[in-house]
Amino acid sequence: MSTDDSLTQIQASIEKFAQDRDWDQFHTPKNLIMAATSEMGELAEVLQWKSEEEVIAYLSSEEGKTRLSEEISDVMIYLLRLSQKADIDIIDSLRKKLAQNELKYPVDLSKGNARKYTER
Amino acid sequence: MSTDDSLTQIQASIEKFAQDRDWDQFHTPKNLIMAATSEMGELAEVLQWKSEEEVIAYLSSEEGKTRLSEEISDVMIYLLRLSQKADIDIIDSLRKKLAQNELKYPVDLSKGNARKYTER
Amino acid sequence: MSTDDSLTQIQASIEKFAQDRDWDQFHTPKNLIMAATSEMGELAEVLQWKSEEEVIAYLSSEEGKTRLSEEISDVMIYLLRLSQKADIDIIDSLRKKLAQNELKYPVDLSKGNARKYTER
Amino acid sequence: MSTDDSLTQIQASIEKFAQDRDWDQFHTPKNLIMAATSEMGELAEVLQWKSEEEVIAYLSSEEGKTRLSEEISDVMIYLLRLSQKADIDIIDSLRKKLAQNELKYPVDLSKGNARKYTER
Repeated sequence: MSTDDSLTQIQASIEKFAQDRDWDQFHTPKNLIMAATSEMGELAEVLQWKSEEEVIAYLSSEEGKTRLSEEISDVMIYLLRLSQKADIDIIDSLRKKLAQNELKYPVDLSKGNARKYTER
Repeated sequence: MSTDDSLTQIQASIEKFAQDRDWDQFHTPKNLIMAATSEMGELAEVLQWKSEEEVIAYLSSEEGKTRLSEEISDVMIYLLRLSQKADIDIIDSLRKKLAQNELKYPVDLSKGNARKYTER
Repeated sequence: MSTDDSLTQIQASIEKFAQDRDWDQFHTPKNLIMAATSEMGELAEVLQWKSEEEVIAYLSSEEGKTRLSEEISDVMIYLLRLSQKADIDIIDSLRKKLAQNELKYPVDLSKGNARKYTER
Repeated sequence: MSTDDSLTQIQASIEKFAQDRDWDQFHTPKNLIMAATSEMGELAEVLQWKSEEEVIAYLSSEEGKTRLSEEISDVMIYLLRLSQKADIDIIDSLRKKLAQNELKYPVDLSKGNARKYTER
């Protein structure tokens, strides 16, 4: 990852934020997974009672789009921090995972159905 | 976000992957949140029974680090897809959220304690 | 809770199961929450890509109903174990929570809308 | 399940609560799973930054024990509601799952290790 990459910069901000507050002590891998779980719960809460039509209307509003973007970001920040603490290059990992998915879900077997590759 | 940014490229790959398989129909916001939840569960499973020492040992091994990186990536891929479907610029959102966190958690009030800003 | 109550019996089975396997050492509150998270993910996975109609059809089938019941049970077993380890009388807690919900969500304010009490 | 069983009574209260508020329309299986996910997140949040020692101290306090019991109950209420809506006898399911676990995790292979049965 080049140093002017946006994700590189964001991870640097996340690290500085934690260091400035002396929060490194709390950021064990298991704690960070629990924190990401808690933010995932907040993400689910945003849409849980909305019908498909209400979701579309809500996400067309500035308020809805902002709220969703904040909750997604909260989960991602903890995942980016976890990657950092575990010395994982997340961009590289994402690329590898996408390449694996291409192999697991060949277009001809997967087109139009979302069955898990283990259940095909 | 410039077009040669790594995250821009990854989101383009995610979109192409879904389109090639005609999976767009499954990728409603609520479904993607449930899929991210299911991947978050797999992430938790990796470390759930390990002690702090065992976590450190496991993440020092190639196997452990790879497994963790794959599970983090799986959650992130669905979050990136969700951002895309909701027309959210995730890099911009992450930056805004980090700026908000700076205000919510001033260094002098937050140093060394992880209390939520609403419970301070 | 009387000793012939079904939940009392189930919690006794859960405890015996853990003791027979010497698993008490793994059952710290945080580990049990992570294990419940991981089972919650499996529960989400069962229905994540299904449309409302497909959910109804699936849960009308013996296979679908059994699968869902197993995943719900997996989450509940860890929650029951967590209650046990934290010395919580879960039946009593459930009753108190339901009584609180009655106060938080009065019928006249809540009828037909699912808004959170803090957002009303 | 006999009608004077505590869980039977609790499920009857949950059903009446939803009916009084006309909330049945929101309680689709997927919505209830998302609501349980959101409550699971709140459960994780209670302990996420606490060390093992802090968890023990917190759960020895009246405040901590009450808070944990409320969050566990919130998840369980949605799971009990989901069982109800899917016409699942949860006590029966819990018993069957515990019997399956006995077979999957024989004492001699599982004693003192928490390896998943698929990874043994």
